Amino acid sequence: MSVLEEFDHSSPFVLYGMKTGNCIRAAMALEEAELPYVVRHYDPRAPGEGEVEYRRLNPTGKVPTLIDLSQRDDPFVLTQSNAIVLYAGSKAPEKLLHAGDARAQARVLERFTYFVTDVIVPNHAGFFLKLQGDAVAAKVLSDRSMAAIEDAERFASASTFIAGDAFSIADIAAVTIVSAVADELPWDRLPALSRWFSQVRTRPAFVRSTSAFDG
Amino acid sequence: MSVLEEFDHSSPFVLYGMKTGNCIRAAMALEEAELPYVVRHYDPRAPGEGEVEYRRLNPTGKVPTLIDLSQRDDPFVLTQSNAIVLYAGSKAPEKLLHAGDARAQARVLERFTYFVTDVIVPNHAGFFLKLQGDAVAAKVLSDRSMAAIEDAERFASASTFIAGDAFSIADIAAVTIVSAVADELPWDRLPALSRWFSQVRTRPAFVRSTSAFDG
Repeated sequence: MSVLEEFDHSSPFVLYGMKTGNCIRAAMALEEAELPYVVRHYDPRAPGEGEVEYRRLNPTGKVPTLIDLSQRDDPFVLTQSNAIVLYAGSKAPEKLLHAGDARAQARVLERFTYFVTDVIVPNHAGFFLKLQGDAVAAKVLSDRSMAAIEDAERFASASTFIAGDAFSIADIAAVTIVSAVADELPWDRLPALSRWFSQVRTRPAFVRSTSAFDG
Repeated sequence: MSVLEEFDHSSPFVLYGMKTGNCIRAAMALEEAELPYVVRHYDPRAPGEGEVEYRRLNPTGKVPTLIDLSQRDDPFVLTQSNAIVLYAGSKAPEKLLHAGDARAQARVLERFTYFVTDVIVPNHAGFFLKLQGDAVAAKVLSDRSMAAIEDAERFASASTFIAGDAFSIADIAAVTIVSAVADELPWDRLPALSRWFSQVRTRPAFVRSTSAFDG
């Protein structure tokens, strides 16, 4: 299958995608885990002639898709942005998952799933309804997502990062979506989240991930 | 805080909740991990006088909430149903996470997050819109969720369980939502998923979890 054979394996990870929140989140996780990767641009809305080949990797046709070529003769294809974040985390578990402390790790996963299920997916569902022309229902879900971000003020008030005093994948989930809706947030009511966001948005991994799919 | 002091610690886990998909999913994970737990009934829509105390455990007021009392002097409170599933999984990692094989574990998490983000959360968002009186938008999201279940036919076609030939938390996420919408699925088009569902719905852990919040 040519899509796999054509890579030179000097960067063992290949990330297919385009400049969306889900793809940036996956890229940031690879950056934070210091996993060398190359980006392959793929736009599901305008897939072109590469679609058949892409769907062999990811039958849903969605982005991102990660290929792990670290075992040369046995490439591993992984879909679902949040699974890619968890996989990258598993490659740097002390740094990104607070591994070694079962409770600290559970807290990371609690806050990570909070941002995924209570913020990111409702936000995307609202965006989907907006594209379908239903602006009213879109706003109901968007408001719900924004309220969950505001409620995360208590996480940022209690510790330096979202799930404790060390950075984790919970911050990766949080910063990508907070960044996307930053213009709409009532920052005057969110002093702790504001302090957190100022700090995390300047991380080199985040800065690089936001431009990873450019050009 | 009395809510913690009153337990006798003979069952080290306490699960607060009611008979909802999220609570059943958390209960099934505890059952499959063979973690002894007691249920405390809590209904967020009619919390009664226990609300203040409950919100000390879980400020969102949502269910479920897990308390791990295994360290007697240091109870650990965990919220978010999917984090509870992952935590239970981490207590029986060979059995529920395919631990020891990094790729097999990544596949478990890929399929687990698939059911969470592409099926369960859109289904819940649709249900929320329905409660708000918007049946049209509710159906758009419900249809999307059902299409993602139908697409999971390819998972069940490729292996005995959702993420390979052994049971995992991916099956826990899948069976609770498939069970909830079973009457609406086009089973004649889903032979592999039908075979899978017949098998998983009879697991003692699933049967017990569906009645855990009764009475």
